[in-house]
Amino acid sequence: MDIVEFFQQSAGKWSSMRTSHHLAFKQQEAGKSNIQIELLDKTDPAVIQLCQQYNVDPATAACGARVSWDGTMDWDKEKHDGTTVLVPVANPDNPKEGTLLREMGYAEKAPVAGSYHINETDELTLVTEYESMYSKERLWFESPNVRLRHSILKRFGGFSMASFCSEIRLGVAKPDEQTSDTAAADAE
Amino acid sequence: MDIVEFFQQSAGKWSSMRTSHHLAFKQQEAGKSNIQIELLDKTDPAVIQLCQQYNVDPATAACGARVSWDGTMDWDKEKHDGTTVLVPVANPDNPKEGTLLREMGYAEKAPVAGSYHINETDELTLVTEYESMYSKERLWFESPNVRLRHSILKRFGGFSMASFCSEIRLGVAKPDEQTSDTAAADAE
Repeated sequence: MDIVEFFQQSAGKWSSMRTSHHLAFKQQEAGKSNIQIELLDKTDPAVIQLCQQYNVDPATAACGARVSWDGTMDWDKEKHDGTTVLVPVANPDNPKEGTLLREMGYAEKAPVAGSYHINETDELTLVTEYESMYSKERLWFESPNVRLRHSILKRFGGFSMASFCSEIRLGVAKPDEQTSDTAAADAE
Repeated sequence: MDIVEFFQQSAGKWSSMRTSHHLAFKQQEAGKSNIQIELLDKTDPAVIQLCQQYNVDPATAACGARVSWDGTMDWDKEKHDGTTVLVPVANPDNPKEGTLLREMGYAEKAPVAGSYHINETDELTLVTEYESMYSKERLWFESPNVRLRHSILKRFGGFSMASFCSEIRLGVAKPDEQTSDTAAADAE
């Protein structure tokens, strides 16, 4: 699986459960959200604009995605919603590694580019380094309709938070996906 | 890292936060526990007894561990405590793969052997297949004193539960571990 295939597999609507483990406080917080991931062509104006923001040639973009989320976390009970654009730019010599451009960072609301790589079991790892923060996220599909994510956050060099998300595809999967999903489940 | 080194690194007392995502109900449950992992020599009577229970030659055991836990889960607010013995038996041709004998299964309270492998990033995967259940757990160290675990459970071929644990070593680490931990955190 390369990054374009990973994005294609991620496209759609997902029901997500999120848990954040605040390591220093030994407290955990639960959240729920709906996530929509829309695949964008590399010629999409939003992709071109994000590339220009990072001084990256839009022709080198692998693809793009618009991610929207709408959810709540237990502690503040407030609505958390937003949207961002992601653009992966693969390394010329290795299509399984590259840079991920983001309109907005996960941990900070400033634009920041991360690095990604996809390993031999099709797990995507994203590493983002902020000024005083480091985040590593791993994403993988247990089946075409079950996506799991885990991340760890360091602040000032110390572990600060570990989080885990389980995401179930909403709505009707494409017939071929349903078949392969059932087959995969049966096979295991 | 081989399975003996993984067990050695796991030895000690840990403060664990656990979250279970019940996928069908879209509900999550939090829990906390203290875990103690005591390394056992392959000549320990408990190791020999477990091997005999599985008709395995105790001489083939890589090592053993006694795991004790004491915690609570939010839904029932009851004490969950117990103890079990684990014995890894490495494949003769590949020390990174083998069978894990358990006194008690994680998902069912019957003895059941699982299979394990350790990948090139030192992540341990345990797969256990029960009659109508399948469990896959992945464990890894983010640092010598931070251990993370994730598992997925299938019942009758369908995804049933995903869980995530973050574990922080309790007490004073050995001086060399403290140093390497700090160094690793600084380096990242």
